[in-house]
Amino acid sequence: MTAYRRPLDVVILAAGQGTRMNSALPKVLHPVAGRPMVSWAVKAARELGARHVVVVTGHGAQAVEAALEDQKVVFARQEQRLGTGHAFLCGIDALTTALPEDARRDADVLVLYGDTPLLRSGTLEAMLEDHRARGSALTILTGELPDATGYGRIIRDAQGDVERIVEQKDATPTEAAVGEFNSGVYLMDSRAGELAHRIGNHNAAGEYYLTDLLGLYRAEGEVAHAFKLSDPDEVMGANDRAGLAELETILRRRINAAHMAGGVTLHDPDTTRIEDTVKLARDVTLEPGVILRGQTSLGEGVSVGAYSVVSDSVLEAGVVVKAHSVLEGAHVGAGSDVGPFARLRPGSVLGEGVHIGNFVETKNARLSAGVKAGHLAYLGDVEIGAETNVGAGTIVANFDGVNKHPSRIGAGVFIGSNSTIIAPRTVGDAAFIAAGSAVHEDVPEGAMAVARGKQRNIEGWSRRYWGGMRERVRQKLPWLSGWLDREG
Amino acid sequence: MTAYRRPLDVVILAAGQGTRMNSALPKVLHPVAGRPMVSWAVKAARELGARHVVVVTGHGAQAVEAALEDQKVVFARQEQRLGTGHAFLCGIDALTTALPEDARRDADVLVLYGDTPLLRSGTLEAMLEDHRARGSALTILTGELPDATGYGRIIRDAQGDVERIVEQKDATPTEAAVGEFNSGVYLMDSRAGELAHRIGNHNAAGEYYLTDLLGLYRAEGEVAHAFKLSDPDEVMGANDRAGLAELETILRRRINAAHMAGGVTLHDPDTTRIEDTVKLARDVTLEPGVILRGQTSLGEGVSVGAYSVVSDSVLEAGVVVKAHSVLEGAHVGAGSDVGPFARLRPGSVLGEGVHIGNFVETKNARLSAGVKAGHLAYLGDVEIGAETNVGAGTIVANFDGVNKHPSRIGAGVFIGSNSTIIAPRTVGDAAFIAAGSAVHEDVPEGAMAVARGKQRNIEGWSRRYWGGMRERVRQKLPWLSGWLDREG
Amino acid sequence: MTAYRRPLDVVILAAGQGTRMNSALPKVLHPVAGRPMVSWAVKAARELGARHVVVVTGHGAQAVEAALEDQKVVFARQEQRLGTGHAFLCGIDALTTALPEDARRDADVLVLYGDTPLLRSGTLEAMLEDHRARGSALTILTGELPDATGYGRIIRDAQGDVERIVEQKDATPTEAAVGEFNSGVYLMDSRAGELAHRIGNHNAAGEYYLTDLLGLYRAEGEVAHAFKLSDPDEVMGANDRAGLAELETILRRRINAAHMAGGVTLHDPDTTRIEDTVKLARDVTLEPGVILRGQTSLGEGVSVGAYSVVSDSVLEAGVVVKAHSVLEGAHVGAGSDVGPFARLRPGSVLGEGVHIGNFVETKNARLSAGVKAGHLAYLGDVEIGAETNVGAGTIVANFDGVNKHPSRIGAGVFIGSNSTIIAPRTVGDAAFIAAGSAVHEDVPEGAMAVARGKQRNIEGWSRRYWGGMRERVRQKLPWLSGWLDREG
Repeated sequence: MTAYRRPLDVVILAAGQGTRMNSALPKVLHPVAGRPMVSWAVKAARELGARHVVVVTGHGAQAVEAALEDQKVVFARQEQRLGTGHAFLCGIDALTTALPEDARRDADVLVLYGDTPLLRSGTLEAMLEDHRARGSALTILTGELPDATGYGRIIRDAQGDVERIVEQKDATPTEAAVGEFNSGVYLMDSRAGELAHRIGNHNAAGEYYLTDLLGLYRAEGEVAHAFKLSDPDEVMGANDRAGLAELETILRRRINAAHMAGGVTLHDPDTTRIEDTVKLARDVTLEPGVILRGQTSLGEGVSVGAYSVVSDSVLEAGVVVKAHSVLEGAHVGAGSDVGPFARLRPGSVLGEGVHIGNFVETKNARLSAGVKAGHLAYLGDVEIGAETNVGAGTIVANFDGVNKHPSRIGAGVFIGSNSTIIAPRTVGDAAFIAAGSAVHEDVPEGAMAVARGKQRNIEGWSRRYWGGMRERVRQKLPWLSGWLDREG
Repeated sequence: MTAYRRPLDVVILAAGQGTRMNSALPKVLHPVAGRPMVSWAVKAARELGARHVVVVTGHGAQAVEAALEDQKVVFARQEQRLGTGHAFLCGIDALTTALPEDARRDADVLVLYGDTPLLRSGTLEAMLEDHRARGSALTILTGELPDATGYGRIIRDAQGDVERIVEQKDATPTEAAVGEFNSGVYLMDSRAGELAHRIGNHNAAGEYYLTDLLGLYRAEGEVAHAFKLSDPDEVMGANDRAGLAELETILRRRINAAHMAGGVTLHDPDTTRIEDTVKLARDVTLEPGVILRGQTSLGEGVSVGAYSVVSDSVLEAGVVVKAHSVLEGAHVGAGSDVGPFARLRPGSVLGEGVHIGNFVETKNARLSAGVKAGHLAYLGDVEIGAETNVGAGTIVANFDGVNKHPSRIGAGVFIGSNSTIIAPRTVGDAAFIAAGSAVHEDVPEGAMAVARGKQRNIEGWSRRYWGGMRERVRQKLPWLSGWLDREG
Repeated sequence: MTAYRRPLDVVILAAGQGTRMNSALPKVLHPVAGRPMVSWAVKAARELGARHVVVVTGHGAQAVEAALEDQKVVFARQEQRLGTGHAFLCGIDALTTALPEDARRDADVLVLYGDTPLLRSGTLEAMLEDHRARGSALTILTGELPDATGYGRIIRDAQGDVERIVEQKDATPTEAAVGEFNSGVYLMDSRAGELAHRIGNHNAAGEYYLTDLLGLYRAEGEVAHAFKLSDPDEVMGANDRAGLAELETILRRRINAAHMAGGVTLHDPDTTRIEDTVKLARDVTLEPGVILRGQTSLGEGVSVGAYSVVSDSVLEAGVVVKAHSVLEGAHVGAGSDVGPFARLRPGSVLGEGVHIGNFVETKNARLSAGVKAGHLAYLGDVEIGAETNVGAGTIVANFDGVNKHPSRIGAGVFIGSNSTIIAPRTVGDAAFIAAGSAVHEDVPEGAMAVARGKQRNIEGWSRRYWGGMRERVRQKLPWLSGWLDREG
């Protein structure tokens, strides 16, 4: 049983343009580790158990809102860019308008940003606990750097509470020497919305600054607590592509370190990219350059070969994916082996002990236990029974020009090499298809189907053929030229 | 209108052996970022607008001259390795001999090296402007390091001009503590050639040193200016393969940083290699491990998947290249998608919205808009009309043993799977080729071609076949063994 | 003639669990650079010329012993984990039991560890020489770190010999400031076994400590010498997967640096992985991401393209492997080229000047000089004569469902595209196989084989076919829809 917790609403500021991104995409939609930056903030808010999440959009608002469409957030449009205080106010007002009854209830409010994807929900959880344990009105997330140039500095009072935040340009040398900086993340009690209306813009830039809330709370007789990050990188933002790449690197290291601690071997952590949605069991081995994306889950002892890319796939225990394979939306049964140069596309469901070899593609294909397709095959829209052997070069031709058709191939079938199964087709159990056949009629159980021309050998033909282009043969094929000379 | 600029001749010293390279290739031909080291110097000279470029060759002279054959440079052979002063003199003499009239005209002379590929032409341009603005007789390019051990140190006089260059072995402790070093790059007025003849070899090594020019100019009553690099890495040379790799890394970072600033997303700049000849539009995305080479140009919004290698190719806006693809000399129309595991070879010209899937190779192939070739195909020496569907396993057989022949396939054609089009062949618009056909005659517009055997099913055949190897079946195929037992 | 050397026995302690590995695999079996950690110790012992190697196993003893089965080592089981002194004693006792006569002879004893794979045999060789030159009874391998926190510190006496080893927890501030630490590697005279029996366990942990041997030797009136590592990383161990990855990185750099010094170009040493068993000639070039494993040997001038993986293969001089290729157990003749996207499997033996192109697999295939297989082929269990051209899409169908059969294809043969050669089959020299043939009978020398259906063209068929699904055509194929409308 969990104790009653005061609700928490989160306002995410995501209206900025990010000019230095030099992009048609709004800054907060640039992805880091497979997820738009703003989604990381939404994710953190959800993990905190937020009641409502408000995203304040501005630049590229439509695109941002479309990207978050299914995230059940409230959108607030900041039509004019008048400063962070104004953005926050837009968010609070949108919440009040959209959900007037909820908004009226006593709740804490947390301000997050759409461009700081490294902030951990665990950090915010600790901040929230500290805020509530101390009965704070306002808690400011701070960090400490050897040199905090560029940031607003945190000036604490004798009690250790936050007295002021001094911007870089206004800092005295003593203040500038302070290493503790303002992250911009604030956790406030339910007065935040009301106080935000009192923020003024009587300053050089004519903007409304969110930092003014500190003074407003203090004018109410409240003290502002600081909650200091142990890792200041968590509030690092990205202003350009180089910054994005830096965030990627930090996140990659963080994720990889967690998997290694969990018992995963990474041959080269620097070139292994695992999205945060991926689950890895103990004794998984990832060779260099492996990329794992989306809803991917790897069972105990799975190994993935160099440079393979696995997305949204489930690999059961003991599966071996060899180098240079691409899996998307596949389910691979225990003990199967796949690759190298294999491609499993969505709807590929492999039973136990299936073997998929090189240059083989499967798509919407259910392969029962023990099926083997070792070489150069395309298996699309097909069910294949246990132990069936799919010869090299086999194509299940599922497309008639506009529609796809399904086929069903039984168990224990032998499909000879270079065969074509023309859908929709049924091949019975234990059937045998002669190599080189184009199967355009169904094959009964236990029957042999042959659909190819009978062989004729025409003796002496080569001599005439090559003789007709003797000069070229002489230049390019010395052995053959000798043969022509020898026996002609 | 540009003001008259005094001509600039450039002498590139490229005669060294590079013993520590441990190679059959002359040192200056070892490539860095896709270009022999000496070519970087030639390129910098061209970008400076050099009138004549002289390359002084020695070790492996023939190979070096062959590598630069089409660069329109003057070669000077340094038959004996008698020092840098001698090498320079060989260069100047070659210029005078080859182009006596030009050489006689007033010109500046710049000395560069064949093994310092990081030196930017922008830096040289700034040096040249400084040289001319100050009316210098001799300007020395210098750099500054915390510890310049090993380099010749720059000793300046009270006016800040260069008084002496002291070699490591001759340096007093005070001189050795100087961090400013001589890069060896000199920019001189037209007396340089004449003065170089006065360099002597009365020293321990019996060599002619280029540095002696400093004293010779000063003896003429001139002062020598220093032009200091902001980034001393620019004059870093490579003496061994580890050094080469270091230069590669620095160049890669420099190139990647410029593209990121230009609005390109690199998922992992550390594993992304882009040659300096490549052009990337805004919002290009490169996944980890991508390699872009030669005359490659990517339009806005193009994305290239992990580990793909693209050389000398043009990808129009919005093209998606999936992971593990190799493109060489291809032109891909807007909105097309290619890969994974696709290979486009020279002469592949794809229209808009073309789809090339896995294990597909194209070579000298013009594919009109909307052509689809999704799986396991070889399209060589062929033109294909709009919207044609190329079935899985299709081969356009262009080779008769010694010659390649072209084929022409119309628009709206449906090529069934595992078909072979035997060139030279013409297939009319809207034709339909039955799966598994070997098309050895032309197909008229709107016709269906079928060229395969008729199917026969032989009932009960499998039982006899497998029954004949029952023991093996029992060991290896339990399901099939059960079937044999069950119905036998 | 080599002088008599006292025999050396090596005891490798490999009984630890490695809880932080979080693995079903015993710690010492976790591989580093392709080799279980304990194997590195065995390898070092062998390179030292050890007479007997004893491996003391405990946790996962069966697995460790199985992994070292063919290494000719003596195993000693430490049934209870009672400390390093006890483990050593188990090793010595096993040696005495297994080889009583040898063990009785005068020999030095070296103690190594199963989890320190970076220790070079060259270092141990130098230690051994020092030990013997000084006539030492006990030599301790030490290292020096700026901060040796956590390690046992080496306290030397006035003569520079080792007086005591002080564990971290017992160290006074002065002792803790000592940077020289005990690696745990000891080299001892033949009394070591006898003295080890005197180690007691009267300490807080109740364990037997190997370090007590120092005191026991000193009590015998002997001095203990220290042999200090120049690179303290050599005795770095791995306790978790992050540690493993760190060892991998250090080993990779060490191996790569040695190859670069030997004249090999690595485009990106950070992503190039070469196992220590691999041999590379001068002027080999490895592009980014190349992985070389096992008994691989590359001749002069070989180049391997990006992301290719080569295992247990011999590539003769001048071979070019293009990007994205996988070679295993192959032998490639001089001047051949392979890839991209090629896969050579065990038993592939290629003569000189063979060409293997994209999406081609060979297995147990002998290809004579000048054979060309450029596209989408599977060549299994086959011999192919000189200059034979294997058309795109060719399959040598070697499998009948339970057995593999061999085929033999002559020289100068032309195999048309999409052909199937059904094993066991013999195709004579200079034969010609028509494209699309399924060759189920042998082909005599110089004959043309054709085994495919005759082509029929059915005029007007497409109009009826597409007309029957006109709506779908209209939606999906605008050009074809227009054609239907135009001529219908």
